[in-house]
Amino acid sequence: MEKKVFLFPERALMEFCRQSFQRSGLREEEAELAADVLVKSDMRGVDTHGVVRLPFYCKRLIDKGTKTDPQIKILREKPAMLLIDGDNGLGQIIGIKTMKKVMEKARTSGVCFAGVRNSCHFGMAAYYAMLAIEEGMIGFAATNTPPVMAPWGGRKAFIGNNPLAIAVPTSEDFPMVLDISMSVVSGGKVRLAAVKREKIPQGWVLDGNGRPTENPDDFFPGGTLLPMGEHKGYGLAVILEMLSGVLTGAGILSEMPLWFSDTAIPTNTGHFFMAIDIDAFGDLNVFKERIHKLIHELKSCPSSEGSKEVLIPGEIEFCREQTCRKEGIPVSSEVLKNLDTFASQIGILKLSFCLPHREL
Amino acid sequence: MEKKVFLFPERALMEFCRQSFQRSGLREEEAELAADVLVKSDMRGVDTHGVVRLPFYCKRLIDKGTKTDPQIKILREKPAMLLIDGDNGLGQIIGIKTMKKVMEKARTSGVCFAGVRNSCHFGMAAYYAMLAIEEGMIGFAATNTPPVMAPWGGRKAFIGNNPLAIAVPTSEDFPMVLDISMSVVSGGKVRLAAVKREKIPQGWVLDGNGRPTENPDDFFPGGTLLPMGEHKGYGLAVILEMLSGVLTGAGILSEMPLWFSDTAIPTNTGHFFMAIDIDAFGDLNVFKERIHKLIHELKSCPSSEGSKEVLIPGEIEFCREQTCRKEGIPVSSEVLKNLDTFASQIGILKLSFCLPHREL
Repeated sequence: MEKKVFLFPERALMEFCRQSFQRSGLREEEAELAADVLVKSDMRGVDTHGVVRLPFYCKRLIDKGTKTDPQIKILREKPAMLLIDGDNGLGQIIGIKTMKKVMEKARTSGVCFAGVRNSCHFGMAAYYAMLAIEEGMIGFAATNTPPVMAPWGGRKAFIGNNPLAIAVPTSEDFPMVLDISMSVVSGGKVRLAAVKREKIPQGWVLDGNGRPTENPDDFFPGGTLLPMGEHKGYGLAVILEMLSGVLTGAGILSEMPLWFSDTAIPTNTGHFFMAIDIDAFGDLNVFKERIHKLIHELKSCPSSEGSKEVLIPGEIEFCREQTCRKEGIPVSSEVLKNLDTFASQIGILKLSFCLPHREL
Repeated sequence: MEKKVFLFPERALMEFCRQSFQRSGLREEEAELAADVLVKSDMRGVDTHGVVRLPFYCKRLIDKGTKTDPQIKILREKPAMLLIDGDNGLGQIIGIKTMKKVMEKARTSGVCFAGVRNSCHFGMAAYYAMLAIEEGMIGFAATNTPPVMAPWGGRKAFIGNNPLAIAVPTSEDFPMVLDISMSVVSGGKVRLAAVKREKIPQGWVLDGNGRPTENPDDFFPGGTLLPMGEHKGYGLAVILEMLSGVLTGAGILSEMPLWFSDTAIPTNTGHFFMAIDIDAFGDLNVFKERIHKLIHELKSCPSSEGSKEVLIPGEIEFCREQTCRKEGIPVSSEVLKNLDTFASQIGILKLSFCLPHREL
C-alpha cells in the first residue's frame, strides 16, 4: 500500500473505536467514553495517542491485563482529596470517572486533588484536564510512564517522561491548554525522523552507550530520551513521579511494565487529577476578562526571527480540532491498514469500509 | 576593596538582617522571620535571593512601597482554598503566614491551595514550600515576577520567569526540593558572565534586537531571557502567571513594576501556595520508604559523559547548607561593602564589624 492519508468524519472513527472496545469486552457506555479520548487526541493533532493505539488498548482487555469490568473504589476521602483504586481498569474510564468526582468535590471545597493507583495508560492527558473547562474550573491531569528518559546527569532511561496537562477556561474561541511531557521530544518524533532518514538535533537523545547523537537510528535499542530544560525538566519529572506514583501507592520507575507489549499483566500506573473552582476565588467573568488581557498582551509581543507570532498553549491544537471537524480526521494508510487487520481479527467492519471517507 | 570572600556565622547574618528590618519599621518577630528567609537563601547557595537583596527590601519599607504593618486578610475561604490580600506587606511575612494557614487547613481537608494578591517579591520560593516538610506534607510555592523573559516565538521580555518550588519529605538526610524558574538561566547568571567577560551559550538570551547572542553584554539594555525547554517552559510560565496573577486578582505581565527600583509603589505581586497532607493518602513511613526507593533507583543510573552522578532535586542545596552551618556563610567583599554602606545609612553596626567572621 502506498503512503496516503485518508480523512474520516469524527462520527465514523468514534463508531469504529466504540465497536472495537465493545468487542473487546467493554459495556457500550464505557466503550463510548474510551473512544472519545482516542478520537479527540487525533483531532487535536496528538496522533501518537489517537486511534493508532486502539489495538493495544483492546489487546490488553482481551488478554486481561486490563479488566473490562473493574471495581473502581475510593480508598480514602477528605473534603479536598481522594485516593482511588482503579482495579486495573482502562486508564481512560478511570480518568474520566475520577475527574468528575474531583470536580464535584472542588465545587464544595474550592479545590480537590485525587491520586490514582492500579490504573493503566490513559492516553492524552489534556482530555481529563479539559473536562474542567465546562465547569468553570482549572483542570490538572498527570501520569507516570515506563522509564523512557535519562535523569539529568545519567545516560540510561530510568524515569518516565511523565506528561502533565493543565486546562483553563477563557473568553476566547479556544481554551488555554498546556499538555507537555518532560522529555525534549517524544520517542514518536525520534521514530519519525528515523523513518524519514533525517538528522535529529543534539540534545534530543543519547545512544545505547550514553553518547549524544544526531542519528535517530542510534536511539534503538537501548538509547534514551533527554529531559527538556536539562535539570529543570528532570526535576519536574521526579516530582510528577512522586505525585503520580509514590503518593498514590502506584508503581514507579522500573516497576512499570510496557503497557503495549506486556498486555496480560496489570501496569499499576499512577495518575493525579486536580480541579480549582474559579468561582471560589471570584467572579468567573472577571477571571475571563483578566485571561483575555493575559492572552492578548502575550500575543502582542513582537515575534522572533523565524517565528510568525506568539502562540498561547492549546491554540494550535484548537485550530487543528476545528479543521478536523470541518474536513475530517486524517488517518495514514499505514495506520488504516493496521486498524483493518485488527477489525478482521475481532470481527467488525473494516475502517476502510466506513463511509464517508476520502483521500487527502 | 579587593575581591575577597568572607565567612559569617548564621547567627551574625541573622542578627544583621533582623536589625536592618527592625530599623526599617518591622516588629522584632516579623523582622526575625524575614531575616531567616534571606539567610537561608544564602545558605542554600541561592545567593541572588540572599542578603544581597536586604537593602532593597528595607528601602521599600522605608519608602512605604511595602507596608510595615499590613492588615493581611482572608478575602475568601472554603475547606480547601484561601484567597489572601497581603495589603502590600513584605512578601516574606505574607508567604510564611499564608503557608502556615494552608497547612492548618490541609490537615483537615487533605489538601489546601491559597492564592495571594497585593504581595511583593518573596525571595527564595523553596523557603515556603519547605515549611511543609516538618508537617509531613508536600509543599508548593510559586510567584509571578516582572517581565524578564520572552514568550516562545517572541523577542521581547513580556512575561516573568515565574519560579515554582516543591518540597517533599524523605527519609534521607536531605528533603527533595525543586526550585526552578521558567527561564533557562536567571538574569543574575548573565550578569555574572558579563562581569567575568565570558561567552554565554546560545539559547540563554536574545539581544535588544531580538537576535540570539553569545555575548552577555548584549543582554543590556533591552535584551531578554529565553524560556527553558522552549515552548514547554514558556507554557509553564503562562500557567504560573495565570495561577499567581489572574486567579488571585494580582497584577500580571506589564502591570508588574520593578520591586527593587520602584520602591515607593506597591507591586501587587501574586503568589500561590499549596500543601498536600501525606497522611491523608496513607502512612507517612510507607511514603518515605517509597521515596527512598525512588531516590536510590535514580541515583543508581549510570552517569553520562562529564557527569559524576545523578543528583536528586535539592541535594546540592542541602550539602551547601550543611557546609555553611559548619564553615560559615560566604559574603563577597562587594556585597559586604554595600551592606556596610546601608548599615551606616540606617544607623546600625556595620556587618564587617560583626565578629566572628573570617576571610576565605
